[in-house]
Amino acid sequence: MIKVTVYITLKKDVLDPQGKAIHVALNNMGFDKINGVRQGKLIEIDLDAKDHDQAKEQVKKMSEQLLANPIIEDYSIELE
Amino acid sequence: MIKVTVYITLKKDVLDPQGKAIHVALNNMGFDKINGVRQGKLIEIDLDAKDHDQAKEQVKKMSEQLLANPIIEDYSIELE
Repeated sequence: MIKVTVYITLKKDVLDPQGKAIHVALNNMGFDKINGVRQGKLIEIDLDAKDHDQAKEQVKKMSEQLLANPIIEDYSIELE
Repeated sequence: MIKVTVYITLKKDVLDPQGKAIHVALNNMGFDKINGVRQGKLIEIDLDAKDHDQAKEQVKKMSEQLLANPIIEDYSIELE
């Protein structure tokens, strides 16, 4: 079994209201040295694959077909 | 400026309906070698700090006070 994590972040030019809300909240709590906050998500997948190459290939397909929205999001894949 | 990423995941014993929904969706798409899916989030923070130690200390406070819910979530901090 191979554990794979997909990190999904908004593309640089896409507005991120959730990140902005966190930024404002942190400012209000006294954390005033912050220049920017962006929120993304991560998805951990345990899968059976014969090797890391096959696992990565599978998770790349999952990312492109379901997990990430390629119009507005970037993703990266990390294998354990 | 230091870029810090906080990775927030549900604790192992906490139910994750979003992860479950992704698991079922992937199964329905033909990805049938999956043993489990868990969804978490990541928060990227650009902040001014005099060094990495100070940045980490600040972001640890942010995580405990706002970003993560310590009852049900774990977090880890990565500095760039």
